[in-house]
Amino acid sequence: MASKKPKLKVISLGGLQEIGKNMTVFEYDNDIIIVDCGLAFPEDDMLGIDLVIPDTTYLMKNIDKIRGIVLTHGHEDHIGALPYVLKEINVPVFGTLLTLGLLENKLKEHGLNKLVTLHTVVPGEKVKLGQFQVEFIHTNHSIADAVALAITTPVGVVVHTGDFKVDYTPIDGDVMDLHRFAELGKEGVLLLLSDSTNAERKGFTMSESSVGGVFDNIFSETPKNRIMVATFSSNIHRIQQIVNSAYKYGRKVAIIGRSMVNAVRTSIELEYLNMPDNTLIDISEIKNYTDDKLVIITTGSQGETMSALSRIASNEHKQVSIRPGDKIIISASSIPGNEKNISNVINELTRKGADVVYEGIADIHVSGHARQEELKLMLSLIKPKYFMPVHGEYVHLLSHKEIALSLGIPKENIFIMNIGDVLELSKKDAKINGTVPAGQVLVDGLGVGDVGNIVLRDRKNLSENGLMVVVVTIDSASGQILAGPDIISRGFVYVRESEDLMEEAKAVINDALMKCEMKHISGWSNIKNVIKDTLKNFLWQKTKRSPMILPIIMEI
Amino acid sequence: MASKKPKLKVISLGGLQEIGKNMTVFEYDNDIIIVDCGLAFPEDDMLGIDLVIPDTTYLMKNIDKIRGIVLTHGHEDHIGALPYVLKEINVPVFGTLLTLGLLENKLKEHGLNKLVTLHTVVPGEKVKLGQFQVEFIHTNHSIADAVALAITTPVGVVVHTGDFKVDYTPIDGDVMDLHRFAELGKEGVLLLLSDSTNAERKGFTMSESSVGGVFDNIFSETPKNRIMVATFSSNIHRIQQIVNSAYKYGRKVAIIGRSMVNAVRTSIELEYLNMPDNTLIDISEIKNYTDDKLVIITTGSQGETMSALSRIASNEHKQVSIRPGDKIIISASSIPGNEKNISNVINELTRKGADVVYEGIADIHVSGHARQEELKLMLSLIKPKYFMPVHGEYVHLLSHKEIALSLGIPKENIFIMNIGDVLELSKKDAKINGTVPAGQVLVDGLGVGDVGNIVLRDRKNLSENGLMVVVVTIDSASGQILAGPDIISRGFVYVRESEDLMEEAKAVINDALMKCEMKHISGWSNIKNVIKDTLKNFLWQKTKRSPMILPIIMEI
Repeated sequence: MASKKPKLKVISLGGLQEIGKNMTVFEYDNDIIIVDCGLAFPEDDMLGIDLVIPDTTYLMKNIDKIRGIVLTHGHEDHIGALPYVLKEINVPVFGTLLTLGLLENKLKEHGLNKLVTLHTVVPGEKVKLGQFQVEFIHTNHSIADAVALAITTPVGVVVHTGDFKVDYTPIDGDVMDLHRFAELGKEGVLLLLSDSTNAERKGFTMSESSVGGVFDNIFSETPKNRIMVATFSSNIHRIQQIVNSAYKYGRKVAIIGRSMVNAVRTSIELEYLNMPDNTLIDISEIKNYTDDKLVIITTGSQGETMSALSRIASNEHKQVSIRPGDKIIISASSIPGNEKNISNVINELTRKGADVVYEGIADIHVSGHARQEELKLMLSLIKPKYFMPVHGEYVHLLSHKEIALSLGIPKENIFIMNIGDVLELSKKDAKINGTVPAGQVLVDGLGVGDVGNIVLRDRKNLSENGLMVVVVTIDSASGQILAGPDIISRGFVYVRESEDLMEEAKAVINDALMKCEMKHISGWSNIKNVIKDTLKNFLWQKTKRSPMILPIIMEI
Repeated sequence: MASKKPKLKVISLGGLQEIGKNMTVFEYDNDIIIVDCGLAFPEDDMLGIDLVIPDTTYLMKNIDKIRGIVLTHGHEDHIGALPYVLKEINVPVFGTLLTLGLLENKLKEHGLNKLVTLHTVVPGEKVKLGQFQVEFIHTNHSIADAVALAITTPVGVVVHTGDFKVDYTPIDGDVMDLHRFAELGKEGVLLLLSDSTNAERKGFTMSESSVGGVFDNIFSETPKNRIMVATFSSNIHRIQQIVNSAYKYGRKVAIIGRSMVNAVRTSIELEYLNMPDNTLIDISEIKNYTDDKLVIITTGSQGETMSALSRIASNEHKQVSIRPGDKIIISASSIPGNEKNISNVINELTRKGADVVYEGIADIHVSGHARQEELKLMLSLIKPKYFMPVHGEYVHLLSHKEIALSLGIPKENIFIMNIGDVLELSKKDAKINGTVPAGQVLVDGLGVGDVGNIVLRDRKNLSENGLMVVVVTIDSASGQILAGPDIISRGFVYVRESEDLMEEAKAVINDALMKCEMKHISGWSNIKNVIKDTLKNFLWQKTKRSPMILPIIMEI
């Protein structure tokens, strides 16, 4: 009889063995809850793709079971896929005030804000969703109002840390709720899912407040010049510290960059950001103040091409241009893949006379993720029976596993999983049992999932070699050539300087078509193949390049 | 009369405010010598480009003046453009034994080896080239046989460091020739050009030999498993240390990766690499040895897609596949832009059970470039009147300038230049006077310089949005449509799932063509524009994407 009892299923649809698009499904009997629903940024080979979201096929098939989506915090990799997923799966969303505030900005942009039910929760609150009870627990992270979750299920309690660090001196004064984690550990936790982002790093992550002192030093050493700070728009505590330093040194604060403006406005409205009176000014007012009275907070810490800082660097920003002596602080670390863009921006700013301070030069950034000693604290407080490292590439999950092993958690109780793997748990055991569909859904413009491998392969080929279109009009009755072959190329060679090559190519195709006629080769696809092969060989021999060749035959 | 005397011109054609394609021109009266002739790797936005070489327009115009090309060492960014430039400018090339050995491999690949005159020099040797005398001075770098140059000109002595570090315990036993630099400084140096790559970094670069101890430790802690080491094929001293550790721990050495095999063969032949007897085995022989008796040295430390290590990671290498427990050492730091590829390879190898050691985890790499304290030593020994920081992005050159300022070199005697700027020197003064053509020549397959901005813009557009070709055949007399419009798309949407969209697009174009007829709009380019605009608007509205649209009209 015992075997007939339903089991708890834990399924990650994103964020395992990859960075981003975090999403975890908890299923018991007829109830499903979803934790987070994030996006990932496209890989280099996903040409033209705007963003990547999780594959929700499994959820669509079980849509009637879904009781709600629960959010841990307001970062893109945890909430960014919601506007797309909520269009298909419109269930209530639960999160803290700031998380939902940031989400609402997004939903408005997608025209969804009136269609979705948002439930604001406070840390400590418990919410019943089907047979699940979800408790929200205050944590520290690089965004305010982050929570972990204690999910009480019929087979036991599951703790999901979300993203976290242990900050004993956080900016908002609230250390993560260590006491509640300790209580839960004492009562007994069946499964822990814990953030692995920094699991390879020894020691502990510095407190967010350590950055404030560095800002103060830079401000005090820069009495005359204008100061600009680029950081992540969601890092409200970082922004608070910039504002504090500005206020202390008698400077006004102006904000640029769409996401920064939105985040600051939302944070002030919701009282997560304390902006002293007469401190915030509009960017249009900066001309009324001397350089020593100004701080500009901006987006662009990753060197993003269209960001305010990049546009300033390339002299394309309408309201701000670099003046020699400007002090520019890039208060962020580079996300892998952005290194070159960032250094290009730094070089441009420096060339224009700015003095740029960045990571490696000064300690103007700390991570929002727990390092090894903090991860040990979490594992030691929770003392879970089973452990599933989450949020990280394979090496991060493996490092986290090794930490758990070093604390005495048995090897067979630790699960390094792949997205789509189903972890089944009863009160007494846990095992990976089967998989569900999981993967990447590519978003390109309005298209969600309409770009796949074939389209990407074509884009890659086009991007490297360009294309050549060959058009021939033939008489459908006689098979005689009525017009052409005409050749149009793009992205292959600069045509005006390659007229000879083009003429030769035409001649080669003409020859090939003659031979087709002589050999009585007919049928569109045969003739197309002859054109393709002939031209391909000719071009490779001449240029060692392989443009995409598109033969088009028009019949009359 | 004094003003009639010719001046020394120093012109960089590459390597200033950029990384790579190092090339400096020294011109006096009717004589030109060229120092180095390197390539750069393409930037992310140079789609499909294989490599980038300097613009040599200025040299072509003054080809009769050129007395020779002098090489400082055998790295790609110092010799890689030679096969292309020597085709146009076939002058004698001077370099040390290993540098020319590596160059010869390249020239053979281009079928040039019998056409070019190579002069082997030894450190300490002096060569007369027109009115210049070039002295080769032994330095330390991450490749053996690197030299600096002391160029005696009619207006004074110029020292060019090439790439260097100060290694007091180098692998080949020869510390850079500090005494000669000291002598030159004492005699008086007009101008110093010095390597700025690590000018932002405090302290000094560790000795190459410090890596050997780390290898020994890893080897001694890995008694049973197979060891693979990935590093730069040109870093012969690194390879020597791997060989030394292998020999010490009784392991055979197998080499994989084309460039690694070539470099090792050349280095053994030229006696830069000391391979103990019975140590080197062919990769086909590894099956005859147990794991504890094997070291495999491989390319791929930058995660390059086609490298041996990447192919091993993705299970595509014919001779080597990962076995759980394999110890893999990536003995390199990541070149900016390669971070993601490297971490993908590490994740793949780890997933297959390998234990991967990389920078950040252990000190298995040192740089080949001098840090601030070494740069101070060079400046202090040479005591140049004028100083020109070279080899680096703007921030590196600026840091190097600040170092020189801190040592008392007057601001007006330091020149941060751009490629193409002409620095004119007499015995008494120096100033930037004019520019010559300089820039990037893109190499794509056999094409050198035939891909420019227009082609790259098309490739970018095609890569992000794909294309749509619209073909219509019309009667040239009546203007009547005889066939079409037909639509062919690539890289835009998956056509089979978007038939409706394609049908609608056709209908929209048909409508537009009807209107043209009604409004008596004729002429190819007018009709093409109508098709383009109509389709563009339609697609943007439907998909928020802008594929390249190629309207083709065939007339009969």
